[in-house]
Amino acid sequence: MKIGILGAGQLSQMLSLAAQSLGFEVHILAKANDEPATGTTAFVQIGNPEDPTTLHNFSQGLDFISFESEFYSHTELAKGLSKFQGEVFPSLSALALLQDRKTQKDFLVQNQIPTSEHLSVQTADELSRAFLHFKNRFVLKKRRGGYDGNGTFYAKSKKDLPRLMQILEKNSQGLIAEAFVPFDRELAVMAFRNQSGEVCFFPWVESQQVESRCDLVFGPIRHRSFQHFEKKMAKALQQINYVGALGIEVFQKDSELFVNELAPRVHNTGHFSQDALLWDQFALHLIAGTRKKFPKNLARAKFFAMANLIGQSKTPVQVMIPEYSKLHWYQKIENRPGRKMGHLNIFGANLTLIKKQIQKDQRSFKL
Amino acid sequence: MKIGILGAGQLSQMLSLAAQSLGFEVHILAKANDEPATGTTAFVQIGNPEDPTTLHNFSQGLDFISFESEFYSHTELAKGLSKFQGEVFPSLSALALLQDRKTQKDFLVQNQIPTSEHLSVQTADELSRAFLHFKNRFVLKKRRGGYDGNGTFYAKSKKDLPRLMQILEKNSQGLIAEAFVPFDRELAVMAFRNQSGEVCFFPWVESQQVESRCDLVFGPIRHRSFQHFEKKMAKALQQINYVGALGIEVFQKDSELFVNELAPRVHNTGHFSQDALLWDQFALHLIAGTRKKFPKNLARAKFFAMANLIGQSKTPVQVMIPEYSKLHWYQKIENRPGRKMGHLNIFGANLTLIKKQIQKDQRSFKL
Repeated sequence: MKIGILGAGQLSQMLSLAAQSLGFEVHILAKANDEPATGTTAFVQIGNPEDPTTLHNFSQGLDFISFESEFYSHTELAKGLSKFQGEVFPSLSALALLQDRKTQKDFLVQNQIPTSEHLSVQTADELSRAFLHFKNRFVLKKRRGGYDGNGTFYAKSKKDLPRLMQILEKNSQGLIAEAFVPFDRELAVMAFRNQSGEVCFFPWVESQQVESRCDLVFGPIRHRSFQHFEKKMAKALQQINYVGALGIEVFQKDSELFVNELAPRVHNTGHFSQDALLWDQFALHLIAGTRKKFPKNLARAKFFAMANLIGQSKTPVQVMIPEYSKLHWYQKIENRPGRKMGHLNIFGANLTLIKKQIQKDQRSFKL
Repeated sequence: MKIGILGAGQLSQMLSLAAQSLGFEVHILAKANDEPATGTTAFVQIGNPEDPTTLHNFSQGLDFISFESEFYSHTELAKGLSKFQGEVFPSLSALALLQDRKTQKDFLVQNQIPTSEHLSVQTADELSRAFLHFKNRFVLKKRRGGYDGNGTFYAKSKKDLPRLMQILEKNSQGLIAEAFVPFDRELAVMAFRNQSGEVCFFPWVESQQVESRCDLVFGPIRHRSFQHFEKKMAKALQQINYVGALGIEVFQKDSELFVNELAPRVHNTGHFSQDALLWDQFALHLIAGTRKKFPKNLARAKFFAMANLIGQSKTPVQVMIPEYSKLHWYQKIENRPGRKMGHLNIFGANLTLIKKQIQKDQRSFKL
């Protein structure tokens, strides 16, 4: 069976490697031939998925298509795939719904999944109203294309109005204003739903950020509200007939959970699964989209942790073998400050110890 | 860093996938473009490694070269690599020593590592002498190129002489006669030696054969003779400055261990490590050959098992997702009786249970 992946970053690289062990012939549609996933298969095409002719040609002969990013124009993808006979997962309608923070928020509210209060901000009037409504303290986010803190802006006092007004002018697709959520910690969980409607969840994790970027993930985290949350989420996914992996970022405040963001794809907070579970998120995303049944999954240890390797400079990196943890390197040609270059995974019976070990390994990388 | 792998079967496929997560750009020299490893990288060259010009061209710009099979002509490889500036691991001299069952036996004997008694059989006289010496019961093996029972013949009575004489005539490279070892079980262990001379061993496993082919592997196996054995083996590897992975097949009879065979490469009995250890044999082979230090390794569970998926017919296979165990599929175009098509891995706290589960999954594959 042949699967096409749109995009060729690290998520695509890891999807491609996982797909090959499952017997897929992997085809990659990449923007340039030096992207991480382009080395992973003999079947690479260079082109823009948002160009309908390119996508149509790429899709010829494929059985399945998936993507590593939710930020493609779903209308352009729909044009390119109008004659495609295979399966696309997640569906383009799910992509359209979840790639826009406004419609994503509406989806959560309709399904009674708690999330921070929000206002749509398309005009100067609406921005002023947001300052009033949230008493000058809120988060302003681009409706589409934000990641790792990019596309996120903060209002902390009335003085921020002119600055945010400029941002509004530059973003014709509009923004949304969200209430600050005073949280105890940031959690995340991966959900998977398959073609038969089965839903499964990975262990929950805590995710710690440095400069708005995921730095360290560890788990499993336990909390009495998870079961109820998962039930509601499974129901919501059924409503939109969602198929594939879904990354769910959650703020926890005492007994309450607020969804921060849904990502309709494999997700950085799920990378731990490569070494902590028998079936990782990349395999399960593929199985969800192409099979009727999930395999039984197994945890490899009591605790696990994942640490990102994030560029700090433009100095070319000498790839190291870490002392305690397992390396997953993304094959990026250039090191850059803030760029995710790879990650480390570890597991063990003592969470404090493995966090210490993985952070020691993380620091030892000269990035 | 760029690594070249000679050969494109399943061992090469799994080496390639592992190498990419470690940051290597992987180049494959394949006989044909539909072999298992050819889909795993954008850098595939079709050609015969034993053709010096082909190998010389392939090696241009590479930092390292390794192989998935020990049965290349080391003299032809030496010609092709005479101008190669990078590292070849294992070395061609180690390859030459271990690819020939006669010199391999001599190496074991010199290092006082127990192995079955043997006689060289190059002539009709020597074959008759073997019948006398072993009292008509022995194993006759090709000096080079044997695998999975291919190249192995049995003498069970005097009547077998004419048949074995014909085999001798067809094998100009000669044969060796080995005493039957009445064993309790067949064990195996992977050894790794790096450039600095560090040696590490994987957990020992028991390996069960069906029709002379490895069918099921499980472990870890414990035995009071292992420590002593490992010490001697480490010393022997130092003597030949061996670098890389070495598969060691061992017969156990009570307290005694006899080496059956050494394979200077990653090995079927080490596949369990992909899911049972943090660092698997493919990563460790690459680390041994390209680094000065081994990382700490971790076991993921108390027990583990691996089952091969072996072709039973010529019917094209529908790849399945097993219920309990993890699939590693080799991307072979054609199913054939006796052909290794993939394998399954599992781990857990109860060995009896996981063996039952993996064998159930193994049977569920329609091969």
